[in-house]
Amino acid sequence: MTDNSNTPRHVADMARQARAAAAGLAVLKPETKNRALEAMADKFTASIDAIKAANEKDLAAGREKGLNAAMLDRLALNDKRIAAMAQALRQVAALDDPAGEIYDMKTRPNGLRVGRMRAPIGVIGIIYESRPNVTADAGALCVKSGNAVILRGGSEAIHSNTILARLMDEAGASAGLPPDSVQLIPTTDRSAVLEMLKLNALIDLIIPRGGKSLIEMVVRESTIPVIKHYDGNCYIFVDESADPDMAETIIMNAKCQRPGVCNAMESLLVHESIASEFAPRIIKRLIESGVEVRGDEAARRIVPEINAATEEDFRTEYLDLILSLGVVPSLDAAIGWINNFSSHHTDSIITRDHDNAMRFLTAVDSSCVFVNASTRFSDGGEFGMGCEIGISTDKLHARGPMGLRELTTSKFIVFGDGQIRT
Amino acid sequence: MTDNSNTPRHVADMARQARAAAAGLAVLKPETKNRALEAMADKFTASIDAIKAANEKDLAAGREKGLNAAMLDRLALNDKRIAAMAQALRQVAALDDPAGEIYDMKTRPNGLRVGRMRAPIGVIGIIYESRPNVTADAGALCVKSGNAVILRGGSEAIHSNTILARLMDEAGASAGLPPDSVQLIPTTDRSAVLEMLKLNALIDLIIPRGGKSLIEMVVRESTIPVIKHYDGNCYIFVDESADPDMAETIIMNAKCQRPGVCNAMESLLVHESIASEFAPRIIKRLIESGVEVRGDEAARRIVPEINAATEEDFRTEYLDLILSLGVVPSLDAAIGWINNFSSHHTDSIITRDHDNAMRFLTAVDSSCVFVNASTRFSDGGEFGMGCEIGISTDKLHARGPMGLRELTTSKFIVFGDGQIRT
Repeated sequence: MTDNSNTPRHVADMARQARAAAAGLAVLKPETKNRALEAMADKFTASIDAIKAANEKDLAAGREKGLNAAMLDRLALNDKRIAAMAQALRQVAALDDPAGEIYDMKTRPNGLRVGRMRAPIGVIGIIYESRPNVTADAGALCVKSGNAVILRGGSEAIHSNTILARLMDEAGASAGLPPDSVQLIPTTDRSAVLEMLKLNALIDLIIPRGGKSLIEMVVRESTIPVIKHYDGNCYIFVDESADPDMAETIIMNAKCQRPGVCNAMESLLVHESIASEFAPRIIKRLIESGVEVRGDEAARRIVPEINAATEEDFRTEYLDLILSLGVVPSLDAAIGWINNFSSHHTDSIITRDHDNAMRFLTAVDSSCVFVNASTRFSDGGEFGMGCEIGISTDKLHARGPMGLRELTTSKFIVFGDGQIRT
Repeated sequence: MTDNSNTPRHVADMARQARAAAAGLAVLKPETKNRALEAMADKFTASIDAIKAANEKDLAAGREKGLNAAMLDRLALNDKRIAAMAQALRQVAALDDPAGEIYDMKTRPNGLRVGRMRAPIGVIGIIYESRPNVTADAGALCVKSGNAVILRGGSEAIHSNTILARLMDEAGASAGLPPDSVQLIPTTDRSAVLEMLKLNALIDLIIPRGGKSLIEMVVRESTIPVIKHYDGNCYIFVDESADPDMAETIIMNAKCQRPGVCNAMESLLVHESIASEFAPRIIKRLIESGVEVRGDEAARRIVPEINAATEEDFRTEYLDLILSLGVVPSLDAAIGWINNFSSHHTDSIITRDHDNAMRFLTAVDSSCVFVNASTRFSDGGEFGMGCEIGISTDKLHARGPMGLRELTTSKFIVFGDGQIRT
């Protein structure tokens, strides 16, 4: 059982318990894991008062610390939010189980059947700063994919996170999960994180979810493989053959529909052969919607009223109603620009030219590359993955939205009937 | 062009050149890459005398340093070995190109077609100790998969490696590869490796090929993701339902056919219900073939003549005609033993029981898990991958034999016709 007191425990002990849990999780039937997730959801619903009482301690401490209203709102758990967390657990239970899936089977000339089986990674550490619901989401996705998880939430949510993790582990164990499948580091002490990041013999993967400085600290300190989730400085390139109406619709959606998220567009490139027509039109629409447009020299020759963009602008994830605009002489110039300045998260081309679409897809070195669609679709749910634990900007193991499959590894499996090597 | 003098160059400059090369490689047609590999092979054949002259410098230095005959033999390049390297390049050219492959395409309810495209990883650093042919093999696999490569070979092969890399890069460039697609660090200075391992902004992946201490140094120092290739302490478990003739044939092959390689069997577990019959029989065959058998207590109760195995024996990759033997009371005991003591490389069960076969496949936490086949099949070629750059004992990105596909990443691609998110 997770220790729910605030007594400091050695993270190495937690990791050893997690490793024992992982061995048990790896051989559970899907229905056992699903039943456990349902039991966790029931437990949340039955424990609303206790959860709110723990959350109230965090809110009181936050008010004392002078957190602003938005931060306090992110921290707050009410009946509706607790119900939503329970609902999210049930949704994860309803997804297909990735563990045990056999694929890529081929028969070799000697009769060996060689293929792969997906398997849980083992023990995953998740380090996060944000809302308490990450405790439930991340815990559920790890358990569903057969992994034991060690959670480390933000200090401002310690009481809320602690009760949520404890309820999950208790309800899970009562429904057949190994104890310690879900653990939360029960202290806000920074040294516990540093200890965790050196446990490469016990923990298989670290996923940091949070700001750039958190992720950089984790990469610097960790001897465990890390999957990073960096910024989304997303580009749209309007090719010379673009349908201008489609381009306008997509740009307005990508910039304005929800500007504060990582898959919102931050920078726009327009092919010079259509810039004198298209740039004034889209700038007008953007300004009408409250967007500040900052242009490069070529853009400002066409629309001199806009502010000047610096090189830094083209590297910036504003998360706000600001847009940098550049004019480029060719598709390849756009590709080069994006590969140099975007954050390799999600970039989209608007074009009617098939060769240009395929060249953009091939040459742009980003996690998600789109043709004729809003960058806002970069999301595990929108991609049909049913969920996501984040959007990896790394190239190894998982790139782009990470779903349950990305929380597994594979092993080669071989079915023989006595083959030997000669 | 690769600098083929021994003048120290900043590895960071090499890495910047490699990154530029990688952008060019990512958009090359398969036939260009294949033509380049053929040109490299031709160049090797045309440069036999120059290669042998460079190799002679390494051999002379090796003799002076007192390398033993086996080490000098590993280092030596003769006409036959140079021809074999050229042939290996042609074989890589003949493989399917993994880059650009589109897969997992699905159509979403809004009409978006969402899927994935394989893409080169970018810049790969390979650090190796062994024979000069690794220069050719690793360079070819990286180029074929669209990656630029920075090679760092062992100091004892510096002259051989330098000329091979230079010939590859020159021949490749003459056939349409970007210059600096294949570079070799032209110094034996250790500080160059340490510099390389910190260039996480320029190099995407490090693959160390060599002994444990080399790999551990790389993991400790690197801020770049590393795919490790550790030992092969491979197990075979003979289940109570095993066909004893099949078990004997497989065990003799796995232990004796080539004992010095990572997929040779090092440890044998036998189910106690058949141990009193099977253990004496297999021990006799093994001893007849010159194998020293070291048994646990239960094994020595059955065959007291064999030496005692320590716990360390069951963790050891002998790479020699030595075998540790244990007797276990159940399938689950065998699984637990293997998960604790094997090196998670390749483990095999001999059984006639379907449930036991499937449980072993699911529960054993190793890169390769076999049913009724010799561990010696753990190999990219035997698995039908056409080649391998090594056998990963890591769980992330690549696990088990790494072929061309494992030298790529993926990106999500989306084909839309104007979709926006609502």
